[in-house]
Amino acid sequence: MAGNTFGHLLRLTSFGESHGPMIGGVIDGFPAGLQIDFNKVRSAMQRRKPGNGEFQSQRNEDDVPEFISGVYQGKTTGAPIAFLIANNDQRPADYKELENFFRPSHAGFTWDAKFGFHDPRGGGRSSARETAIRVAAGALAGQLLERFGIRITGYTSQIGAIVIGPLREVPNAELISGSSLHCPDPQAEALMQTLLENLKTEGDSTGGVVSCMIEGVPAGLGEPVFNRLQADLAGAMMSINAAKGFDYGDGFEAAGKRGSEHNDPFSVGEKGLHPATNHAGGILGGISTGETILFRVAFKPVSSISKLQITADKEGTMKELSIGGRHDVCIVPRAVAVVEAMAALVIADHMIVSGHIGHNIT
Amino acid sequence: MAGNTFGHLLRLTSFGESHGPMIGGVIDGFPAGLQIDFNKVRSAMQRRKPGNGEFQSQRNEDDVPEFISGVYQGKTTGAPIAFLIANNDQRPADYKELENFFRPSHAGFTWDAKFGFHDPRGGGRSSARETAIRVAAGALAGQLLERFGIRITGYTSQIGAIVIGPLREVPNAELISGSSLHCPDPQAEALMQTLLENLKTEGDSTGGVVSCMIEGVPAGLGEPVFNRLQADLAGAMMSINAAKGFDYGDGFEAAGKRGSEHNDPFSVGEKGLHPATNHAGGILGGISTGETILFRVAFKPVSSISKLQITADKEGTMKELSIGGRHDVCIVPRAVAVVEAMAALVIADHMIVSGHIGHNIT
Amino acid sequence: MAGNTFGHLLRLTSFGESHGPMIGGVIDGFPAGLQIDFNKVRSAMQRRKPGNGEFQSQRNEDDVPEFISGVYQGKTTGAPIAFLIANNDQRPADYKELENFFRPSHAGFTWDAKFGFHDPRGGGRSSARETAIRVAAGALAGQLLERFGIRITGYTSQIGAIVIGPLREVPNAELISGSSLHCPDPQAEALMQTLLENLKTEGDSTGGVVSCMIEGVPAGLGEPVFNRLQADLAGAMMSINAAKGFDYGDGFEAAGKRGSEHNDPFSVGEKGLHPATNHAGGILGGISTGETILFRVAFKPVSSISKLQITADKEGTMKELSIGGRHDVCIVPRAVAVVEAMAALVIADHMIVSGHIGHNIT
Amino acid sequence: MAGNTFGHLLRLTSFGESHGPMIGGVIDGFPAGLQIDFNKVRSAMQRRKPGNGEFQSQRNEDDVPEFISGVYQGKTTGAPIAFLIANNDQRPADYKELENFFRPSHAGFTWDAKFGFHDPRGGGRSSARETAIRVAAGALAGQLLERFGIRITGYTSQIGAIVIGPLREVPNAELISGSSLHCPDPQAEALMQTLLENLKTEGDSTGGVVSCMIEGVPAGLGEPVFNRLQADLAGAMMSINAAKGFDYGDGFEAAGKRGSEHNDPFSVGEKGLHPATNHAGGILGGISTGETILFRVAFKPVSSISKLQITADKEGTMKELSIGGRHDVCIVPRAVAVVEAMAALVIADHMIVSGHIGHNIT
Repeated sequence: MAGNTFGHLLRLTSFGESHGPMIGGVIDGFPAGLQIDFNKVRSAMQRRKPGNGEFQSQRNEDDVPEFISGVYQGKTTGAPIAFLIANNDQRPADYKELENFFRPSHAGFTWDAKFGFHDPRGGGRSSARETAIRVAAGALAGQLLERFGIRITGYTSQIGAIVIGPLREVPNAELISGSSLHCPDPQAEALMQTLLENLKTEGDSTGGVVSCMIEGVPAGLGEPVFNRLQADLAGAMMSINAAKGFDYGDGFEAAGKRGSEHNDPFSVGEKGLHPATNHAGGILGGISTGETILFRVAFKPVSSISKLQITADKEGTMKELSIGGRHDVCIVPRAVAVVEAMAALVIADHMIVSGHIGHNIT
Repeated sequence: MAGNTFGHLLRLTSFGESHGPMIGGVIDGFPAGLQIDFNKVRSAMQRRKPGNGEFQSQRNEDDVPEFISGVYQGKTTGAPIAFLIANNDQRPADYKELENFFRPSHAGFTWDAKFGFHDPRGGGRSSARETAIRVAAGALAGQLLERFGIRITGYTSQIGAIVIGPLREVPNAELISGSSLHCPDPQAEALMQTLLENLKTEGDSTGGVVSCMIEGVPAGLGEPVFNRLQADLAGAMMSINAAKGFDYGDGFEAAGKRGSEHNDPFSVGEKGLHPATNHAGGILGGISTGETILFRVAFKPVSSISKLQITADKEGTMKELSIGGRHDVCIVPRAVAVVEAMAALVIADHMIVSGHIGHNIT
Repeated sequence: MAGNTFGHLLRLTSFGESHGPMIGGVIDGFPAGLQIDFNKVRSAMQRRKPGNGEFQSQRNEDDVPEFISGVYQGKTTGAPIAFLIANNDQRPADYKELENFFRPSHAGFTWDAKFGFHDPRGGGRSSARETAIRVAAGALAGQLLERFGIRITGYTSQIGAIVIGPLREVPNAELISGSSLHCPDPQAEALMQTLLENLKTEGDSTGGVVSCMIEGVPAGLGEPVFNRLQADLAGAMMSINAAKGFDYGDGFEAAGKRGSEHNDPFSVGEKGLHPATNHAGGILGGISTGETILFRVAFKPVSSISKLQITADKEGTMKELSIGGRHDVCIVPRAVAVVEAMAALVIADHMIVSGHIGHNIT
Repeated sequence: MAGNTFGHLLRLTSFGESHGPMIGGVIDGFPAGLQIDFNKVRSAMQRRKPGNGEFQSQRNEDDVPEFISGVYQGKTTGAPIAFLIANNDQRPADYKELENFFRPSHAGFTWDAKFGFHDPRGGGRSSARETAIRVAAGALAGQLLERFGIRITGYTSQIGAIVIGPLREVPNAELISGSSLHCPDPQAEALMQTLLENLKTEGDSTGGVVSCMIEGVPAGLGEPVFNRLQADLAGAMMSINAAKGFDYGDGFEAAGKRGSEHNDPFSVGEKGLHPATNHAGGILGGISTGETILFRVAFKPVSSISKLQITADKEGTMKELSIGGRHDVCIVPRAVAVVEAMAALVIADHMIVSGHIGHNIT
């Protein structure tokens, strides 16, 4: 099946392999008339880019998308926006010795089962390199949303066992951008840094959680029953590499609560009747309430570790394996930009579907 | 937008309001040639039905779907399968006094924001009554999957603070069906019963978690990138009323683990090379591995409680509210059948998409 | 595949067989707040109904759709609108002797090839009875469009060799409704009547053409490249039973013309710059121009004829066949209502897609 | 809306403007394991290319698609296949003087109405240059179909008033490829040549018809009711620039026939029971019969003519207009490759949807 297109009326089609000449995307259904700030696109790309910190893959990519259609004199035209991102720093040789192995917890095994073929050169299509495409597209969707007063803020809320408590207020943007781990809590960040250093030394890895807040969404987004806003958000987030869980509002915590604690009674404020306590996380019955949308995405530990693993090779012989190459210790800090991008695509799509944004916004 | 159809090649379209004459569904793309066991359909419906236990809504419905097309002499024909479920025990009068209120944490508020209208009679379309449609459709999909050796088992794994540990083996079917709470752990169930009794007395409610296992899925289901199997499962589960979270495999727990703990090395068994430890939960890179698929869905506490709530009415005046009517203390035991149904629809759809199941299975 | 749902954001799902207890449809994505005129629905159904004239199938059906959801106090609510149409006058016995035959030019042969099964009772799902569903749904879409100043007029422009010339003005509504063949040209109609009488005597049938005009469509409907307005109209029309061709504007005639004859130079009138000569038929580059949309649909002769046909039975033995039962001599007069209905669904869908019509029109 | 993606399970996403740096496409859902013959791709591109004959636009393009993903060592991998086609010979200056005009019967007027913007440089996205993308994608789909014994043959059957009679046998491939107009009838071709010469001298243009035959399609393709095979073919063909009509089998001719002439009685041949006379054109009830599929597409005369036209400019002042630049006299010979390409995409998609072609064909 064609599984590389995402969205209802605003659609991203993604293409390209990790070790081919380039990757890219086509954004279709984007309204005409938005003046694009290319610096903001570059800065979103920068946050996802490998090579930013000592716990990240040292693959060196510029990751500056080249826009080849749909933009004229810096403005979107309503035509599909295609962009290309070069793969400069491919090193297929790193993967040479893996040809006789499926790497544990990598997609090579299942791609081979499905397509009778797998690309040993760094995961091919299942590589996290694919997420660069989402960030580029999401950066455009994010700029569109800003024009309509919607702002998306993701941050690292857990790495390994280090967890910051649930925030109800959007954290300070500088706190996040000032942290190489995109964590707004300096004390937790210091602990996370220490943890990552230790893991790096051991040749091990860890998982974590990205939290995300969407401010300014008008009440009324989301479609009844199957296309509830949280269903579309969950599908989007669970399509990100290494994502293992999604929840929104009080999420899994809500399972242990009482109705009398969890209910959001209505109160009356500046914006009229509204469920101010927002345990719901900004969505009721699948439709946005007008409150801030709050959700979390859990990520598994990076599967490529240099620590010895005992596994079987393709002939079924037990072997010791230590994976070299340039790998992250924890994907979460880089995943923040990807979560934000997917959130921007979902919300922009629903803004269009619901008629809040038309074909032409000039 | 049309948000009432679910699926790629196997599609369920759902219709009908809680307090209209009937609800129903259309299953399109179902292969020809399956002899339907209507008793199994009824028994699935029975598990979701209100009125089964003392902690459940005492609304009295037969919930026997009447199949009006797509089935000839008990066999599916390849034509769309439409079915109707009568609403016998509507009591719109129960909702009379609520006309001037939006009930806290109910969808009335957001439906009104979207459609300029909300049906005060029991939630209309946003009522959990809609899930009866999913169970009927899922029962057919489940029978189709059984024919191909796939079996789905859901169970209650948490109610309030009472949690049973993660099971790696599929629990005994009789243990689940013998429990009115669909919980396979008798000790935990006793505690859950006590908790629910106390909450009922207090006029309060609680949330919980449904866990689900899918055995027998061949390796290779799921589509690259955006239609990863877990993305489609997450979207399906998060479209269920009151669902707040989804995770699979080690899920949110994985966030706290190391790669060396979480990785599934390959071992060689009867079925050849396979990732036996299955922390992955049966899916790698979005594609099934052939191991059992494991996932969880968190549900919020029931919003309708008779305990006093202080809220504002539509004029903005603060009011005390106690919600009467026939409501569940905890939705989780009834949600088990809904989770299983949505899982069956997703997996059957992917079996068709991937060509494992054709137009005609006779 | 699920092939029984039509539309982008406004979707009709169709179900039910010709000789089952009932047929029906679900209209999803219909905006809230339209007061439905049920008399108009009945009158559209009446025009498609068999038994209206001497050249039509004498099957006797009320064809009054029962609306079971999505409408409250006569107004649409935004929820899916489901309706049922009873099959009162089924006579499966009529088809008894056909069990060993595939009827020439009927779908039984191909349904059997696809589904390993065919329903001998009147074509099952491939029967033109299915079009009653489209007319009911189209009647609602038509009323929605009227609210926005859009009016659809179909008429019979050819039966057998009797053709009326291309009309550039919308014909008088009374002329059409006053004609049992829905032909606005009384002289042509008289010839058509004679032709049909002769064919009836001979036990033969004929084909024809329905022409259709859509007034009041704003400029700007239709989506670039693949979802051009004419592409969606063509797909809709070619999904009608017995349709063999579609063209718009000057259509197949345009193939023989010169650019200098066919081009529509711009002129300036009350509504500003516009292509008044309208050879284009109201669409340029896939997008509506604001001029009247003009298109035609060709229908083949009815396949069920009592005249002797020499064919082979399922064992491959040559046999003479005379088809009894109640069949039309020409489907075209009844197809007028179906063409109008499908046009209404396409245009209403594009009005929603383009943001001209929102979720709530009160 | 996102209107630049075509197909159910095999999807083409198209991007790029006529006068941007490049155009391209993404083919998603293409099975793994096909060895691509790039010479055949080039030769399909060659047939559509401008500059091939004296009656065609003299724009000079290589039109060699560069494949940047989804192909490894010449074989498809199951990943999306992206390709780029450079625009070498852009001459935006040719369009300078048109900035104050909408060209009669061009899409500039309607794109401006929709997007508040139109690209004066050669039609931007609505230019027939976009069809190069379809031909590249169709060439791959065509090779996939050949592997399954399906062959598609398009040819010019009408230019202006010169029409060749309906062919029931697939014309000789060399006759078509040997003709610069892709017309298999040498006598008709000579007349067509003369006609085109005269029109060129006069600065005028003409329309025509492409006929197409698809051999080897198995019985059973096409989905009930709305996704009938002819509906999907019609939608595909009517999405081609300048297409004005589609019919299949006896098409518009069928409207004038009797049932006793038009019906295809079953006969018994080598391949068993089948409707040999094939007036149906290879499809019954929306599903392929196993006979050759026959259809036609009508094209309007080229709108850009150097002959004087009297039109109004954007200010509403009447003006004389003579369009320079490099334009075809008749688009039909070049459209043959586009019709074949779209047919290949539709049939390959339905082969996948129906399970005849899986994820992996090695």
